[in-house]
Amino acid sequence: MFFATRLGELQREGRYRYFAELERLPGRFPVALFHGRNPATDGASLRQTTPREVTIWCSNDYLAMGENQHLRQVIKDAVDRLGSGAGGTRNIAGTAHEHIKLEKTLARLHQKESALVFTSGYVANETSLSTLGRTIPNLLIFSDAWNHNSMIAGIRNSGADKVIFNHNDPADLAAKLAAADPSRPKLIAFESLYSMDGDIAPIAEFCDLADRYGAMTYLDEVHAVGLYGPHGAGIAERDGVAHRPTIIQGTLGKAFGLVGGYIAGSRLVVDYIRSHAPGFIFTTSLPPIIAAGANWSINHLMNSQAERLAQQASVARVKQRLRLQRIPFLETSSHVVPVMVRNATHALEASNYLLDYHNIYIQPINYPTVPRGSERLRITPGPFHTETMVDKLIIGLSEVWEKLSLDRAA
Amino acid sequence: MFFATRLGELQREGRYRYFAELERLPGRFPVALFHGRNPATDGASLRQTTPREVTIWCSNDYLAMGENQHLRQVIKDAVDRLGSGAGGTRNIAGTAHEHIKLEKTLARLHQKESALVFTSGYVANETSLSTLGRTIPNLLIFSDAWNHNSMIAGIRNSGADKVIFNHNDPADLAAKLAAADPSRPKLIAFESLYSMDGDIAPIAEFCDLADRYGAMTYLDEVHAVGLYGPHGAGIAERDGVAHRPTIIQGTLGKAFGLVGGYIAGSRLVVDYIRSHAPGFIFTTSLPPIIAAGANWSINHLMNSQAERLAQQASVARVKQRLRLQRIPFLETSSHVVPVMVRNATHALEASNYLLDYHNIYIQPINYPTVPRGSERLRITPGPFHTETMVDKLIIGLSEVWEKLSLDRAA
Repeated sequence: MFFATRLGELQREGRYRYFAELERLPGRFPVALFHGRNPATDGASLRQTTPREVTIWCSNDYLAMGENQHLRQVIKDAVDRLGSGAGGTRNIAGTAHEHIKLEKTLARLHQKESALVFTSGYVANETSLSTLGRTIPNLLIFSDAWNHNSMIAGIRNSGADKVIFNHNDPADLAAKLAAADPSRPKLIAFESLYSMDGDIAPIAEFCDLADRYGAMTYLDEVHAVGLYGPHGAGIAERDGVAHRPTIIQGTLGKAFGLVGGYIAGSRLVVDYIRSHAPGFIFTTSLPPIIAAGANWSINHLMNSQAERLAQQASVARVKQRLRLQRIPFLETSSHVVPVMVRNATHALEASNYLLDYHNIYIQPINYPTVPRGSERLRITPGPFHTETMVDKLIIGLSEVWEKLSLDRAA
Repeated sequence: MFFATRLGELQREGRYRYFAELERLPGRFPVALFHGRNPATDGASLRQTTPREVTIWCSNDYLAMGENQHLRQVIKDAVDRLGSGAGGTRNIAGTAHEHIKLEKTLARLHQKESALVFTSGYVANETSLSTLGRTIPNLLIFSDAWNHNSMIAGIRNSGADKVIFNHNDPADLAAKLAAADPSRPKLIAFESLYSMDGDIAPIAEFCDLADRYGAMTYLDEVHAVGLYGPHGAGIAERDGVAHRPTIIQGTLGKAFGLVGGYIAGSRLVVDYIRSHAPGFIFTTSLPPIIAAGANWSINHLMNSQAERLAQQASVARVKQRLRLQRIPFLETSSHVVPVMVRNATHALEASNYLLDYHNIYIQPINYPTVPRGSERLRITPGPFHTETMVDKLIIGLSEVWEKLSLDRAA
């Protein structure tokens, strides 16, 4: 009864989530087969059809590495050599040669002494931050107001005192650091690139403040690794400050095209988290075949610029066409293109219209992922979005803007 | 300084973890290539060698499904069709056709209406229990004293009131249920098979108590799925009570040979967790290639008894030989064979001796994973452990028992 009531509330508020069931087609990404919404809807707003081809415009497989033929071969070769799963926790029969090689590659990518792999970026954040906050006596954590749920969860679960500073605001952070007890150990936790707005943190300024107040820094680069910097090490590398954060956290599940998360830092801090973090210790490790694939993918993107250049061209093309059509989006220097609808119902209708009439899949982003009144279609152009696909996207969005009488950009 | 001090403490207490770096060899499991300990030790107790072959006796790839040639082919075919990663959260472009098929298979396996896949069993427990405890007003959680860290973390992170009952003790649970406010909603959380002792819960009695006191039940079957019951659905299936727990939780990372976790239950409770659990919502989903492999593995083990029978024969053989040698182990009806050393230093020495002189890898299990004084070598015989390997294991253990003057069984 309780469960039904709460689910009914979500549905009435338009916050009940239907998942688009997709099936990749060999060599066709970002085109995929759309199998319908899950749970299946009642048909009120969506036409239930047999599977049909759609173009995905909201994937976090940012560089389409999931399509890379060489990566696929690496994984298949690894399956032949290593089988399927790891068969244990890292401590009990689950540390594969491939994990160690991957961790060495990650350390090299970020120019740190050590790295540690987790089953996901979410787990990396939750268990690293909760471990630091729980075990360092009297730690005070400064957390950016827009930090991802996984960081918020880790900080909350740590039980440590926290201070939330205004998003990407060095002045506010400085004031709050100055107001804190100088004798307490401190940690500043923030992201380099915020997923939903695509805006970028002032990493150097935050690190300056950390130096001034003797704080450690924890930098989440999940939406930047593989994408920015000459070796794809992220925004910190792009800005020439990769050596400054105490810990850099990243993911294998977005630009690198697989699954899993990691941290990189000094030998001591990484060993400390390795030795204390429950979400690392008490879980089966990533399949060695995934580690082998990730190792190849990272090494490839450390040397190849082609994927990044193609993606950046695609992003620029979409932004330029949106400007011409005066379809409003958040202007940033990043690859995330948030097209602003600013209304929950309209965002859902826009998404459904694009899917039903244009075979374009863009998931609407509503509260609580973004604040009410800032609902959007979050578009992530990739290297394989063709000019024809961009044409169709712009036509579809223009129709939506007309049909729903949405505001145009100034 | 703080990190170095704490790591030094772990080393002085003998609790610092060295991971055995292993590399599977094609078609040779449980034989693998041993690359050394990580972090590399100083050589005081371990001879550093070039990689050499060892026999693994402590893997949780219980049925050696990681070696299954058909499963490997399924994964490789999936790589050709589907690429590498999922490319998004379940809500944003990351629900693959393969996830939906897998969830249907899991629901069928456990004879429940629905199932939901998570990135790991750890995450399934942590986020399901923390979501229930945080969002159901006034929920009181009864937790078995030996529950896994992932369940403890979920319950603690939920902030809900909890009552710990004595391990596998229906009388104690009954007394604590009777003492609780009858009007409060209640949840009983326990495991079917406890990993470190191999003992089995009285599921029917716990469910009887749940019925009497109007409590929900949450049953962790991670060490039982694939292994027990005519279709490998776990101890609940073996005992004919699979329909009774509100939620059954399991893993794809042990007997099924891959990675990932899941819950199964009524449509409403699964949809509720799907709609509210942060550790499910805000994370990249499992690669569809892993889901495809898991789907095949589960379907195979629903029909095939060969792997289970071979494993059970192997377990019986090891137990019988240990009895003949009067090497003490915990007698249970399960596949876990905890050989009791009962001393942290000796457990480590025993493990090192077996590795150095017999090329046998069994990780020592020390505090805090097990209570002090109950340190052990946890052995998990599998279908591919030959009689010759068992002979060598027994010879190695006998030497260890002599060399360290360990107590014999009565």
